[in-house]
Amino acid sequence: MHAQAYFEPTCERATQLEGLLSSAIPELVRFVNHAEQERSQHGSSRSLISDNDHQISLVNPLSKSRESLESTLRSNGFLAVDEEGSGAQGIQRLIESLLKFSVNPSAPGFLDKLYAAPLPPGIAAELILGVLNTNLHVYQVSPVLTLVEKHVARALANMFGLNGPRSGGISVQGGSASNMTSIVVARNTLFPETKVEGNSAVKGQLLLFTSAHGHYSIEKAAQALGFGSSSVIPVPVDTSGRMLVSELERLVIEAKRQGKVPFYVNATAGTTVLGSFDRFEDIHKVAKEHKLWFHVDAAWGGGFVFSADSELRRTLQRVDLADSVATNPHKMLGVPVTCSFLLAKDLQTFQKANTLKAEYLFHDDNDETAQRRDLANDNAPGSDDEAPEDDWSEPYDLADLTLQCGRRGDALKFFFCWKYYGTSGYSSMVDAAYQNACHLATLVAKTSDLTPVLSEGSAPGCLQVCFYFTPGGKFTYGLLEEPGRIAVRTSRSEQTAERTQMVRIGKFNSQVTSSIAKALVPRGFMIDFAPALEGQEDQGSFFRVVVNISTVRKTLERLLQELVSVGTSVVANIPVDAGRVRF
Amino acid sequence: MHAQAYFEPTCERATQLEGLLSSAIPELVRFVNHAEQERSQHGSSRSLISDNDHQISLVNPLSKSRESLESTLRSNGFLAVDEEGSGAQGIQRLIESLLKFSVNPSAPGFLDKLYAAPLPPGIAAELILGVLNTNLHVYQVSPVLTLVEKHVARALANMFGLNGPRSGGISVQGGSASNMTSIVVARNTLFPETKVEGNSAVKGQLLLFTSAHGHYSIEKAAQALGFGSSSVIPVPVDTSGRMLVSELERLVIEAKRQGKVPFYVNATAGTTVLGSFDRFEDIHKVAKEHKLWFHVDAAWGGGFVFSADSELRRTLQRVDLADSVATNPHKMLGVPVTCSFLLAKDLQTFQKANTLKAEYLFHDDNDETAQRRDLANDNAPGSDDEAPEDDWSEPYDLADLTLQCGRRGDALKFFFCWKYYGTSGYSSMVDAAYQNACHLATLVAKTSDLTPVLSEGSAPGCLQVCFYFTPGGKFTYGLLEEPGRIAVRTSRSEQTAERTQMVRIGKFNSQVTSSIAKALVPRGFMIDFAPALEGQEDQGSFFRVVVNISTVRKTLERLLQELVSVGTSVVANIPVDAGRVRF
Repeated sequence: MHAQAYFEPTCERATQLEGLLSSAIPELVRFVNHAEQERSQHGSSRSLISDNDHQISLVNPLSKSRESLESTLRSNGFLAVDEEGSGAQGIQRLIESLLKFSVNPSAPGFLDKLYAAPLPPGIAAELILGVLNTNLHVYQVSPVLTLVEKHVARALANMFGLNGPRSGGISVQGGSASNMTSIVVARNTLFPETKVEGNSAVKGQLLLFTSAHGHYSIEKAAQALGFGSSSVIPVPVDTSGRMLVSELERLVIEAKRQGKVPFYVNATAGTTVLGSFDRFEDIHKVAKEHKLWFHVDAAWGGGFVFSADSELRRTLQRVDLADSVATNPHKMLGVPVTCSFLLAKDLQTFQKANTLKAEYLFHDDNDETAQRRDLANDNAPGSDDEAPEDDWSEPYDLADLTLQCGRRGDALKFFFCWKYYGTSGYSSMVDAAYQNACHLATLVAKTSDLTPVLSEGSAPGCLQVCFYFTPGGKFTYGLLEEPGRIAVRTSRSEQTAERTQMVRIGKFNSQVTSSIAKALVPRGFMIDFAPALEGQEDQGSFFRVVVNISTVRKTLERLLQELVSVGTSVVANIPVDAGRVRF
Repeated sequence: MHAQAYFEPTCERATQLEGLLSSAIPELVRFVNHAEQERSQHGSSRSLISDNDHQISLVNPLSKSRESLESTLRSNGFLAVDEEGSGAQGIQRLIESLLKFSVNPSAPGFLDKLYAAPLPPGIAAELILGVLNTNLHVYQVSPVLTLVEKHVARALANMFGLNGPRSGGISVQGGSASNMTSIVVARNTLFPETKVEGNSAVKGQLLLFTSAHGHYSIEKAAQALGFGSSSVIPVPVDTSGRMLVSELERLVIEAKRQGKVPFYVNATAGTTVLGSFDRFEDIHKVAKEHKLWFHVDAAWGGGFVFSADSELRRTLQRVDLADSVATNPHKMLGVPVTCSFLLAKDLQTFQKANTLKAEYLFHDDNDETAQRRDLANDNAPGSDDEAPEDDWSEPYDLADLTLQCGRRGDALKFFFCWKYYGTSGYSSMVDAAYQNACHLATLVAKTSDLTPVLSEGSAPGCLQVCFYFTPGGKFTYGLLEEPGRIAVRTSRSEQTAERTQMVRIGKFNSQVTSSIAKALVPRGFMIDFAPALEGQEDQGSFFRVVVNISTVRKTLERLLQELVSVGTSVVANIPVDAGRVRF
C-alpha cells in the first residue's frame, strides 16, 4: 500500500538492555557511594569546600546559573535530538552529564525537601517496572502487580486503623492527585447527581475547608474541579500550626447560614512548613455533625504509622476516623518518587465515584459484574451502612477506582522496601529520624545565634526543624539604623503603614536567610526556607531543615556550625549605606 | 525527649543497591531474551503450546484464575509484609515470582494493548530516575531533568508543527491526565473567572464535544472537573470511525440555541478501537467559528509524526491548528509506561491556568517573577496575540504549569530512546509497524474465515487491525437454527424486539470471539476484542490486533493460522441444543 522499503525490526532488545545496564550501573553505584562518603567526613574538621580532589555532590548542579548550565548542555550536544541515533555510547555520555549536573538526593547534606535519598529496593523496583512495562488498568495484563497494589494498600490502610472488609486503597501519581481524587470521591459520594449534572446540580456554593497551613494542592484541585478557589475556606491555626477546630466549626456554621454547602474538610498530618498534626478526633466531630467528608492529608506525616514510639504514634491518634487518607511513601519512607496512596475504609465509594463504562477495555466476566457497574453508574449511592457486605465484590480492574486509565505499578516500589526492611526496619528508621529531628531542635535552642520558630521547648511536630538566624540573639533588621523610617516612607497609606513596615523589615531578614541558604551549597548543604508566618512578617522567612531516615547526627551538628559561620560572614558583608541595604 | 533507644542509621545504600541490581539484572535480561526467542519460532511449524521444555511467556500468568494466583502468592509468603525484613534474598525470591506470573509485554504475541515491548534505553532511564530520585516541581532540585523535559517537549511539539517562541509542553502522568489538563487549561483560559468562582461563573451549561469513538477519559474528566457527564456531547462518526464534522457543527449550533456554552472540542488522532484519525482542519474551522478550544488526543496516533512516509504523515495533517495536543510516547513509541506529554503552541496558557502562589515552594528570584505570578493569578488572561513575545519569560519551576505538584521526570525515558535510535530510527520503526499492520489487513481480507470490520480495501487507520471470525464467510450466529425466534421470545416489548434480537445474536458472536481470545493464550498470543459497533450489534464483538514497533510479519502470519485453527475448534465444540446455545 505504501511504496516505502520495508525493514523488518531486528530483535536485539535483550542485548541492548544488558549493554546499557552493565555500563550504567557502576556509574550509578559510584554516584550513591560518593554521596555516602561525605557522611563520614561530617565528623572530621576538614572543610567540605569543593576542590579538585574532593567534589561535593551538590556543588556541580548548583554552582552554575541556569543559563550557563543550559548553554553547556547545548554546546556539548546533550540536549539535541538528532536524525541519527547515538546508540549505547551516546547514552553512556548522557548518563555522565546527567549525574554530573544533577542534585544528588543521597548526599547527607540534602535536607531541603520532604523526600531525600531513595532506598535501594525501591530503585530495583523502578528497573523491574520498566521491564514489566505494564499498566494497572485491567487485571488481565498486570495480574501480580494488581495483587501487589491491592495487598500493600490494604496493609497500609490497616496500619492507619482503616480496617473492615472494604478497606484498602489505590496508588495515585502523587500527593496532589491523591488529594484531588479524595475531593472527587467526596463530591460524587455525597452528591451523586453531580456525576451526570456537574457541580451545578447542588444549589448553593460547595465549600471545602482546610487549615491555613494545609497544602496548596487542595486549592489547586478546587480550581481544577470547577469549585473555584473561593470555595476553599482556610481555617486559622494556633501558634504550632494546628487547625483551630472552634474556628472550623464557626466558619462552617457561618457558611451554612449564608446558604453555602460545606461538604469537605481536609485535616493535615504533618504540614509542609511546620510539620504540625491536626486534631483528628475534634475535626471528625465537626465533620460528622455537619455531614462533611473527612479527609486526612498524611502525605508527609503518615510515615509515623511505622513508629514504635507510642508518643510519636499519638500524632496520628484517631486518623482511623477519616473517610479517606492520602499518604506518600516517597516522602518519609524513602521510596523513589513518585509513590502515593489514597486509602479508605470503604473502597466502594471510590468505585461508585469513578467508574465509567468503557467496554472496549473492561470485559466483564459475567452479567452480574456488568450489572454492578451499571448500578454504580446509574444509581445514587446512599448510605451503605446497612447493606450486607457481600453485596459488593471488590474490583480487580483497578482503573475502575481511579481518575487515571493507565497507571504505573508504583506500589511495587513501596512493597519491595517494606519486604526488604520489614515493619521493624521501618520503625527503627522513622524513630531514629525523629530522634535526630529532636536532637537538631535541641541544638538550635542552645545555639545563641539561632532562634526556633516554634515556642521554646516544643518538640518538632514532624521531621523538620524551623528556625531563624539571629546573630547574638537579634533579628538582623537590627542592622538597619532606622528600619522604621525606611519602611514608613515607602508605604502608600497611613492605614497600611504598620504592616508595610513589618513586611519590609521582614524582607531584609528574608534576604539574609536566602543568602545563607545559597552560601551553604558549596559547603555541601541544601536546606530550604519558608516565607514569614502570618503575624510575624517582620521576622521574614526562616530555615526549614528536613531530617530524613538516612540522616546522622554529625551531619546536623556540622550543618549548624557551617550555617552560623556562613551567616556571620553574610551579615558582616552586607553593604549598608545610610540605613539602606543593598544585596 | 523520647525514652526509646537510638540507632544511628547505617550507611550501606551503595552496597545494597549494587547487590540488588547485580542479582536482578540477569533475571531481567533472561525475561526479555526468553520472549524474544519466541519470535524466531513463529517461522517454524513447531507448535508453541507450552510444555516443560518450552514455556511460553504469556502462559503462566494467564493459565491461573485470579483466585488461584492469589492463593499461590499468599501461601508462598509473597504477598505478606512481615515484622522482620527479608533483605536481598527475600527480594530475589520476589523477583522470581514476579517475573514468573507477569504478562511479558516483550513477547511477540502480546498484541493486546496500545503499549507493548519497552525499549531498552527507556528501561535504563527508569533505573536512573530511581537513583536521581527527584521531583520536577522546582528547577533548584532537578536542573538537568527540568531542561530535558523542556527541550524534549519542545522538540516533540515542533514535530507536530507547534512552533513559535512559546511552544512546548509538559510531561503528564498519562493520557487521561493529559486530556484532563487540557480541559482545565481550556476552561481557565476562555473563562478565567472560573479559577476563583468555579464553573458557575459561566451562565449556561459548559459543553465539551468529542467523537462517539473518542477515549472515555474525556467523559471521566468532565465528571471530575464538575461539568458532569451530561456536558459531554458525543458526535456521530462515519463508517471508518471519523467524527462527522457536519454533525459537530449542527450539535454546537443546537446547543447554543438552547443557551448552553460549548467551549471545547476533542479530536482524536488514532482512536482506541478502530485507529481512525479525525479531520483536523475541518474541526478547527468549526472550533474557530464558535470559539471552542481545539484539543487533539493523539495519545495513540501521535507516534506517526515520526513517519517518513508522506502518506502516513497525512493522517496528522494540520494537527498544528490545535490549541493543545496530548501524546503518549509510552504507546506507539515503546517508551516504558507512563510517558505522556501535553503540548501546545502557547505554554503561557498552561501557566495562567495552573499557577498558584505557594511561597514555601516557589522562591521567586526577583520581584518581577513574583509580579508575573501575581498577574497570572489575579488577571483575566485575554487574547495575547498582540502582546510582545518577551512579555512572558517561560517558567523553569515546572509545577507552575501542571495540576500536579511533585512529578517524576518521565521525559527522560523518551529522551533516551530518541537519542539512542535517532529520529531516523524511530521513522523506520513506525513505518515498518504500519507496513506490518497493512500486511495483516491484507492477510485478513484474503482469509476466507475472517471478515474485516472496515470496509473492503481500506488500509488500517493506525496500527490496529479489526476483524470478525466468520467461518466459511458466515457470522457464527448462522449456527443457531432459529436465532430470530430465540431473541424475540425474550424481549420485553414489541418496540425493542428488533434491537434486542440484534443484541442477542451479537452476544453469541461475542462469546465465540472471547472464547477464541482465551484459547489463543496458551499458543502464545494475547489479542483484545472490542464490543459491537453501533448499528452492528448483531455482529457482536470483534478482534482488535495491535501491531507494535517490534512486531515481525511471521508473528502476524502465525497468529492468523492459530486463530483460524482455534476458532474452528471453538465453533465445532459449541453445545447446541434445539437452537439454544450454552457456553
